[in-house]
Parts: sequence; structure tokens; C-alpha cells
Amino acid sequence: MLIVMDRGATPEQVKGVIEVISAQGLTPQPIPGGDRVAIGVLGNQGYVDESPFRGLPGVREFIHVTKPFKLVSRDFHPEDTVVKVGNVEVGWNRPPVIIAGPCAVESREQVFAAARVVKAAGAHMLRGGAFKPRTGPHSFQGMGFEGVDLLAEAGKEVGLPIVTEVMRIDQLDRVAEKADCLQIGARNMQNFDLLKEVAKVGRPVLLKRGMSATLEEFLAAAEYILSGGNDQVILCERGIRTFERALRNTLDLGVVPYLKNITHLPLIVDPSHAIGRREIVPHMTKAAIVVGAAGVMVEVHPSPAQALCDGPQSLSPDDFTKLMAELTG
Amino acid sequence: MLIVMDRGATPEQVKGVIEVISAQGLTPQPIPGGDRVAIGVLGNQGYVDESPFRGLPGVREFIHVTKPFKLVSRDFHPEDTVVKVGNVEVGWNRPPVIIAGPCAVESREQVFAAARVVKAAGAHMLRGGAFKPRTGPHSFQGMGFEGVDLLAEAGKEVGLPIVTEVMRIDQLDRVAEKADCLQIGARNMQNFDLLKEVAKVGRPVLLKRGMSATLEEFLAAAEYILSGGNDQVILCERGIRTFERALRNTLDLGVVPYLKNITHLPLIVDPSHAIGRREIVPHMTKAAIVVGAAGVMVEVHPSPAQALCDGPQSLSPDDFTKLMAELTG
Amino acid sequence: MLIVMDRGATPEQVKGVIEVISAQGLTPQPIPGGDRVAIGVLGNQGYVDESPFRGLPGVREFIHVTKPFKLVSRDFHPEDTVVKVGNVEVGWNRPPVIIAGPCAVESREQVFAAARVVKAAGAHMLRGGAFKPRTGPHSFQGMGFEGVDLLAEAGKEVGLPIVTEVMRIDQLDRVAEKADCLQIGARNMQNFDLLKEVAKVGRPVLLKRGMSATLEEFLAAAEYILSGGNDQVILCERGIRTFERALRNTLDLGVVPYLKNITHLPLIVDPSHAIGRREIVPHMTKAAIVVGAAGVMVEVHPSPAQALCDGPQSLSPDDFTKLMAELTG
Amino acid sequence: MLIVMDRGATPEQVKGVIEVISAQGLTPQPIPGGDRVAIGVLGNQGYVDESPFRGLPGVREFIHVTKPFKLVSRDFHPEDTVVKVGNVEVGWNRPPVIIAGPCAVESREQVFAAARVVKAAGAHMLRGGAFKPRTGPHSFQGMGFEGVDLLAEAGKEVGLPIVTEVMRIDQLDRVAEKADCLQIGARNMQNFDLLKEVAKVGRPVLLKRGMSATLEEFLAAAEYILSGGNDQVILCERGIRTFERALRNTLDLGVVPYLKNITHLPLIVDPSHAIGRREIVPHMTKAAIVVGAAGVMVEVHPSPAQALCDGPQSLSPDDFTKLMAELTG
Repeated sequence: MLIVMDRGATPEQVKGVIEVISAQGLTPQPIPGGDRVAIGVLGNQGYVDESPFRGLPGVREFIHVTKPFKLVSRDFHPEDTVVKVGNVEVGWNRPPVIIAGPCAVESREQVFAAARVVKAAGAHMLRGGAFKPRTGPHSFQGMGFEGVDLLAEAGKEVGLPIVTEVMRIDQLDRVAEKADCLQIGARNMQNFDLLKEVAKVGRPVLLKRGMSATLEEFLAAAEYILSGGNDQVILCERGIRTFERALRNTLDLGVVPYLKNITHLPLIVDPSHAIGRREIVPHMTKAAIVVGAAGVMVEVHPSPAQALCDGPQSLSPDDFTKLMAELTG
Repeated sequence: MLIVMDRGATPEQVKGVIEVISAQGLTPQPIPGGDRVAIGVLGNQGYVDESPFRGLPGVREFIHVTKPFKLVSRDFHPEDTVVKVGNVEVGWNRPPVIIAGPCAVESREQVFAAARVVKAAGAHMLRGGAFKPRTGPHSFQGMGFEGVDLLAEAGKEVGLPIVTEVMRIDQLDRVAEKADCLQIGARNMQNFDLLKEVAKVGRPVLLKRGMSATLEEFLAAAEYILSGGNDQVILCERGIRTFERALRNTLDLGVVPYLKNITHLPLIVDPSHAIGRREIVPHMTKAAIVVGAAGVMVEVHPSPAQALCDGPQSLSPDDFTKLMAELTG
Repeated sequence: MLIVMDRGATPEQVKGVIEVISAQGLTPQPIPGGDRVAIGVLGNQGYVDESPFRGLPGVREFIHVTKPFKLVSRDFHPEDTVVKVGNVEVGWNRPPVIIAGPCAVESREQVFAAARVVKAAGAHMLRGGAFKPRTGPHSFQGMGFEGVDLLAEAGKEVGLPIVTEVMRIDQLDRVAEKADCLQIGARNMQNFDLLKEVAKVGRPVLLKRGMSATLEEFLAAAEYILSGGNDQVILCERGIRTFERALRNTLDLGVVPYLKNITHLPLIVDPSHAIGRREIVPHMTKAAIVVGAAGVMVEVHPSPAQALCDGPQSLSPDDFTKLMAELTG
Repeated sequence: MLIVMDRGATPEQVKGVIEVISAQGLTPQPIPGGDRVAIGVLGNQGYVDESPFRGLPGVREFIHVTKPFKLVSRDFHPEDTVVKVGNVEVGWNRPPVIIAGPCAVESREQVFAAARVVKAAGAHMLRGGAFKPRTGPHSFQGMGFEGVDLLAEAGKEVGLPIVTEVMRIDQLDRVAEKADCLQIGARNMQNFDLLKEVAKVGRPVLLKRGMSATLEEFLAAAEYILSGGNDQVILCERGIRTFERALRNTLDLGVVPYLKNITHLPLIVDPSHAIGRREIVPHMTKAAIVVGAAGVMVEVHPSPAQALCDGPQSLSPDDFTKLMAELTG
């Protein structure tokens, strides 16, 4: 860490900061600048806590060189982590994994139809929401455990592992019995207790980036799960909130190669939620794979016009079959 | 709702949409424009669900005139709701309520010292966090239930009702026994299950705006609590995330008079988290009151330089006493 | 346009609005809703001006169905516009055009070396800045007209048309004599007088999206040039400013397929300025082409480490040659 | 400046960077961290140029402790600058200056009526736009020089200095003959040539913050004017663009006390453009003064409902007279 002093900081103030650094068992390294003094803090093993230095007279700001996460970083774990979901392996530098299925499980017919379509087209994993986070309480909230059961049955029938979202701690065990992978949605990326608990149930976790989460916050959220003893975490970029509202969100594809350098955890891309418009989803799916994503997750509905949730962004069976042919062609 | 058709939509496509509207028991009202056709959807009692219209051929976009919330709106409840926390009343058009205390409860000494300071200076409610949502798992996570107990004792001693944050459903009952008001933090604003459950414990709720929540999403989150049978909700603006990072967040004071026209629920302002710098907090506190906020919540620590959490934004006892004198002077 | 009335608007207020609509020669179409009245405004040939309706009692908001641009829209000009720069054609549904060269022209040696590299690798157009918009006045401001002359000589030698940025009106004629295409930078996207004047000099224009410009504003800026009689406009997405600052900007690739549906003007992508890091630029270049961009513009410097401007985002000759091989391979 | 090395940087790479620093006549100061090495760059008189260090092997990032501006900073000029516009003085720690008038000059009657209203209510300066930057070319573009002449006549009659926007270099001399202060609008904040030229005409300049300008960019834009020899610059916060679109922009009042510490140039606030709604403007005007702004600029129109530009945000004569009474009461 670097402590930057005020331009007019007195020698006594600089000395005061140096003493507090030493008192913490750390090594102070003053750096006199043209303009103002800065003091390096050396000797730490990880992230230096600012607390002891806050409010000391003459201190202007703190610059962290070390990041607030460690376990997720390539600095400490250079090799790619490969996450196993059923018999499917997800990792950087592997063939991209295609996850597909409806936004929400709506009925036995719908989820079985979707499962057959995505399997036939060549997808590797089946998705479907049973617990749905909806902006307002008056919208369809999902089928609950019945939906999880139906999804699991459908996955079994077609031979695909399944991933489904969890929203509360007391759901975890029961969903983990049926699901191969548990998804934490964007709105719960900083629901830290859910992160701590999901780490314990022995299933891989698909963690979505929060709508306005910085990459540092995203990685720190994953760090909660790894700290809890579970390194089977798949990160998922799903669009960020910006001033531009022509599309639902802004899909931030630059993070794919950027994070590949920083973390060993695989990152997949969800173009459906990011874009919100069916006709654009196939373009962005291809782009995600071109920039090196470890996989993609796309919404497919047997009959998008009848979907109870996110119909406009769901691909039809024909759309998806065509997309898969292009991806593998 | 208004359904806007593509410019090249055929008469058959327009007819198709009209038929679906009628089939829903609603009344279609075509509006031929210079440029393209739009179709009004009339006869609804609340928010019209887009689902049945999605994906119909020729449909370009949906424009909602009715909002996705109802119970929180002045349209349906014109009079101000007054929230009672202990013997303190919070409402628009009432004297502003001052809530103060440390970011986190750290020890018996600290919280009692803080309680005495804020009481002596004239605050109306005591705040303090026992469960702390921290970006990374390696930071101090709060004292837990012991912290709640200490805060409650301190509040009792000085005669102030207390407010403290809850983060998980299985904490609610136990915290509600001790706390006069339960806070839902910004990161949990869309933790919808927590919202549903907090509605049931019989305590007023202080709901903070999410870091990137639109006002519509903010009100829809409050709607979850009112839908659960609890109208004792205090809204709290605490700064939003923008491109500007010179200060911690951007305090969005324009929402105060704006929301006063829209909702009967009182809105308070938290300048400490929004700004992140002690020397600016008093200015923004005064501004919040000038624009008509129902109250403010400010962080006060007996010794900010020793704070385990958010020290740089905490006022010292002297700072706070001076601020209170200015507010009431 | 749709005029939405307040929920409590009186019949007299509705009547008042209807009268003003009629007085403008337009046709009012009241739409009584469950919740509130809205009034459609029909009979317009283009964008309806809000002015006469603003401030009328009972009016809550205006919803525009028609957009504030017309000439740039596919609604009025369905066929792709093909822009000719020298002998190079830029258009949707054509082979993507590769524009490459240094951020800034720095010397005869540098620009000739760059020109030879990009030509040899297969680029179609040479870029280079002679007038540089720099955040602060103490940074290198470009070589000026001498730089334009050098760029033109280098382009001529290798047989590539050139594009270079213009920043002020009194430069236009002189630069237009030498350059095949004039670039308007992101910071000048809403320098409306520059747009009006650049339309008159008889050269194609490459218009970059402003850092925080909505797509509507971007298209409206292009509309200024088309209104001035010049339809030879190439749009350029170059990243937008968001809360995420890990990379220089957020490259918004979703706009490529989105704008392809809306405008006949070709759109290219500048991944270099968007991303700001050399090692990520090739990934995003490929992604831009995969999503259907009409071209890309990338920064190439003979010796990036010595670049006076934007070195960290410039590709080396080897990087660029490798990228071109991958694109055409 | 601090150069942060990659975690795996070799001693040779560190040595290479140190040599380049020395070769620039600067002093290297290595800081070995727990995690990675950083190298302080000392001995500079101002902002250190990154260029020579970019692309050196092993370099990860640059952290600037010194800012890209100097003349505008209190570090180099601790005393408040007082800007004189006619006989009005604008400065921090002075009574706030009230600037008022219509968005656009529309006619002799309108501007004289506005001038009389704002003078009678106690304003200190008259504003009015004659050259209007409009999003699209089909909107009213202002009266041009005739508008400037009318504004000047109206100002003379009521005895108020005037401020009006300039948009192109060849307008400067002629407008400067008539206007007491020249405004550079938000869209031109980084029209650097306009900044360079406006510095030379011998009039104070009112510089508005760009819609998505960081404070560093805002101050660097002002630095262009001071570098040109003119220190008579008034800064103006006018709202920033964020994800929240319920109001026109987000008024960022926290910057007022923040910038007061950083720059000697006075900052005023324009709540009208920031908020866009008449009924909220008075609240934000009072808040701007409470947080210490050197002044405010508000739009007042004799008849807002007839305004050709920005009617919904313009105060009526009665609104403004009432606001002024409250401000001075």
C-alpha cells in the first residue's frame, strides 16, 4: 500500500504515519516526490488494512497495489481451474461449453420440450429457473421446488447435467440434491451469507456478475466461495448497467481476455440477459467464443412468444439449432 | 401500455396484436402515427404483463404508462405514511429525524460512548452494524448477535430506539426482538426473499437504495415489503455508482423532491456512505434537509481513526455536535 | 408522440391539451387508461416538437414514438449506404474494411514505417492523427498540417487512402485537400458547428461515438452531416464510459447488430481506444468482425514503446501482421 | 508516479525500468512489496509523462500521484481566484452570485421581459443563449448574433452583466464585444481549440462540466484556458449522465465542497439543466448554496409554456421571485 500525504504535510505528520506503520509490524518506506510525500508500506503478506492509518493528520489518500482477493488470483494459483459439472468440464483453454434452456421452468411439457431441443442441437448442459428474482412482487415468481424436480427429470431423460438458480439459504440442501450446479444470480452477487453457505453444499457454483459490480468486486465475491472451501466456481459475465438503455444491458466482452490473465476460474458469457433481444443473441454468442470465453449460456424456449419470463430474449428451437450449427460448423 | 409496431408492420400483424389484447379481456386502441402504428392497451387495473404480446410478429417495443408498483405509490395512497420507530415518527412534512452512530459495533465501550455522544448532541435514533456486508471475506465481518445486544443495551441506556442491518432470513426473529427498526442494505435491495421475510417480523424496515437501482426498481423493492403486509418502510438514498470515482459514490439529492411526489413512504438520506469523506458529510447533511428529506443517517464514531470500518467517513463527536448545533441553530 | 396526463388530471386539463394539439394542425387521440389518461398526437410527418405542450396543466410526461432523426434511418432509406474512401468501399454486408496506423503522426520515418507495415499486412486504409485532442494542455498536441502532409505522402507511397482527425473549422479545407476521409473524434461528436461545416467539404466523414452518447444522440449527430448534404458518413463505435475502469472504456459490441437494423450508414469498430491494452485488442477486433461490423480501425506503431501517444494500446508490426493473418486465414 | 511491476517481474526487468527512469533525469525509488515490486519516480516538477515507460517488459500499471493540471490547483495557487464579470465578483467564500434568464433568446419582448423579472427579483447577472447546441438538426438553433445583441441591450437596460454561450471560434470576437462573460457548454468542454481561443479574447469564461467528465478532466479543460493566459474562469456543475434517467441528469452536489479544496477557481451550479423539472429546481438551488457554491445559474422564462427550448425546466417569474425571496429571507 502507498499512503499519499497532503502537499502541505509537516515532517511531524510524516513521522506520525511512519510510527503507526512500524507499530503494525510493517516497514515504512518514505518516497519524497516533487510535489508531495508518499510512504510505501512494505512487509505485508496480503491486503493491508487501511484502518489504523485512517484519519491520521496529513494523510490524503491510500493506493492499494495488492488486491482484496488472493485465492481466485493467478498470482497464487497459476494453472487453470477446471470445474466439473456432471461429466462436463469447464475451463479456460478448453472447448467452450454450451449451456441452454428456458429462463423459467413453466411446466413439464415446456421443460421437456426445451431439454430435447437443446440436447439435439448439441448443448452440454441444461439451464432453467425455478426460483425467479423479479423486480416487482406482482410478476411470476417461479415454480419453486417442483420446478427443480421437473428440470432434474428432464435433464436425466436427455442426459444433460442441470444448473438452476438458488436465492435463499434454506433452499440450498434440497436444490443441491437435484441440481448439478447452483447458480447465484446477479442480484445476489453480494449476498455474502448466501455465498458463504453455497460454498458448503458440495456442488459447483455458477456466479453471475452483479449489474454494477467492478471486476474487483466480482472476484472478491468469488473469493467468499473459495474461502469457504469450494474452488469449483464458474464466473459469468451477463452485461452491466450503463447509461445506454437501447439494449437491456451492455455486454462487456473485453472482460473475457482481461480476466483470463487475472484469474484461474473459468468465465462464461450470458448474452441473453445482457442483450435482451433475440435477433442479437446469436451474434454475441459467437463473439463471446471468439474472445475466448470458457462457455456461453443462452436462453431457449420451445415457444418464446408464450414464455412467462424474458420471452423477447429467448431463442426458438430453430434459432438455437441454427446457431449451434454455425458454432460447430 | 402502448405497443409500438414496426414501421413496416402489415395490417394483418396489427390485427393479430389487437386480437391478443381482446383475448386478455383488455381493450385495444389503435393509434395510427405519421411513421408507424401504435396500439394502446386499455382496461387494465394495474401493470399490464407484456408476456402475451412478446414475440408477436410486427411488434417493436412496449411503453408502460402504468408502473410496476402500486401500494407504494401516492396514486393509490395520497397521504404521507408516518413510520413509528419506538417513539420516533418519520414522515414527509415532519421535522427531520437524525439517526447517528458507528458504522459497526466494535465493543461495549465504543458503542456506549457513541450512544452518549449522539444522544447528547440531539439525535433521535441510534444506528450500528453488527452484521457487516464486506466486499471481501478477509475484512472484519461484524460482531454478530453480541453486537446487536450491545447496541440494544446502549440504546436503552441513553433512551434512543435503534436500527441495525439484517443480512439473512434466519437472523430476523432474533434481531427483531432487540432492534426497533431493521435495515436492509444496498447490496440486499433485490434480495427478494429477505424482503418478503422481513415484512413478516413486525418491525419497521429501513430499505437502502441499491448501488445501481433505478427509482422504479427501488420502489418495486419496497412494494415487496408492503405486499407482505408491512407498510412501515423508510426509504434511504445512499449514493449511486457512476463513472465519477473521486468520491465514494454520487449522492443523488434530486430524488428527494422527486420521490416526495411519487410515494407516500418517507425517504431519508445517508450522506456518509454516499460521500465517503468526513469533511464533506456535514455539507451534504444540511443539503439533504434543505431539499426536504424526512431525515438523515450519519456515521459517528468516538474515535474515527481507530474505526474498524469506514473510519474516513465517520464524524468525530466534536464534528457531530457542531453539525447538530448548525442544523437546529 | 404520446402525452401522458397526471392521474388526477381534470377533464378540463385534458380538453386544454386536446385544443393545443388541434391548434398545431395535428390530430389528438385520447386514450383513457385504467390509471390515467394519455393522448396520442397524430398527423405529424416527423418528430413532434414538445414545446407547445410543455407546462400545460395536468401534463406529466411525453413519450416519443418517432425519433429525432430521419435521414440516417432505414425507415426512410432502406438500402445500405456504401461510403467510398478513395477506391475503398465501406458498407454493411460487404467485406470488412481494415483501417490501421499510428495514433499520432510523429515523424516521417515513423509514419512511413507504419504505412509500409499496414500495407504489407493487408490493411485497406491508413490512419494517423496530426491534430490530437489531449485531456490536458501539457501533453503532445500533434504535428498539425505537417503531420497531415506526411500522412498523405506515406499513403500515396504505399497506395492506401488516408483518414485523419479534424478539430476546428478553419482546418477543414486544407486537410480535405490531402485526406481521403475526415475523422470527427468522440469529444467533438456534439460539436455541432464542426458537423455542419464538415458536411460541406466534399469528403467522406468518419464520425466517432461520444464517450457517453446514447445511440439516439449518435444518430442525431450523423443527421447533422446528412442534413448538410453529405451522406458519405461512416459511424464508429469506440467504447463508452461506464463505472468499470479496469479497461479504458467498455466496448459496446451489441450496438453493431442493433444499429445495422436501424441505420443504412456503415458502422466500424475501434477496439484500440475502447480497450486501451494491446494484448486484448486482437480479440476484440475479431469479435467486431464476427458481430458484423463494416470494418475495424486499429492502432499500429512501428515501435509502441516509443509512441508519443497511446503506446500501450498500439499493436506492434508483428502483432498486426499476425492479426491480419488470423482474420483472413 | 509509481510504476507497478508484474508479480513475476524478473530482477532484470526491474533494472530495465530503473535505467529508463534515470535516463530521463528522474530518480528511481524501488519499493519491494509482499506481493510485487513497485518503483517510485521522483524528482519531477510536474506531471510525469508515461510514454517512455510504456511497453517496457514487466510493467503492469502506472499510478499517478501528481495530477495532469497545475495552474488550476490550490497546490500552486492557494488563494481564491475572484472572477469579475462587469461589476459582479464570483469567488469561493463570497456571497453567492445568482445568474438567471431564459434558455434561449427568442425575441426582443421575451428577453426584455425576462431581464426585468430577474433584475427585479434580485439576480446579479443575466443569461440567455443565442447559439444553441441541439441534439438534432431539426430543432431551433438559436437567433445567432441578433440574439446576442438583444441580450446585451436587455442587460444594459436593467443594469446586469450578461453571459452567453459561444460554440465556434469565428464567433468569439464578435460575441466578446457585446457579452461580459462567455460560456463554453458541456458538449464543448473538450473542444480544446475553442478553449485555447476563448482564452485570448479578454473576457471571463464560464466553463460547464461535460456530461461524463471526471473532475480531473474538468480541471484539465480549465487548465487549457489558464495556460492561454486567462485565469478568469468560473466552473459550472450541471449534472452528469448516469444510469438513472428519471430526472434529466444527476446533479452531483458533492463536487462543490470537494472542488473547493482542490481548486482556487470558483464553482457555480446549474440546477435547471441537471434536473430538467421546474418544480424541483428551487430545492436544488437552495441545496447548491448550502453546500457552498459560489453561485447558481437558473433558467427563468416570462412564459415557460411558450418557451422554444427547455420550457419544462424554466421557472416562471413568480417561481423565481419566490425563490429569490427564500434565498435572501
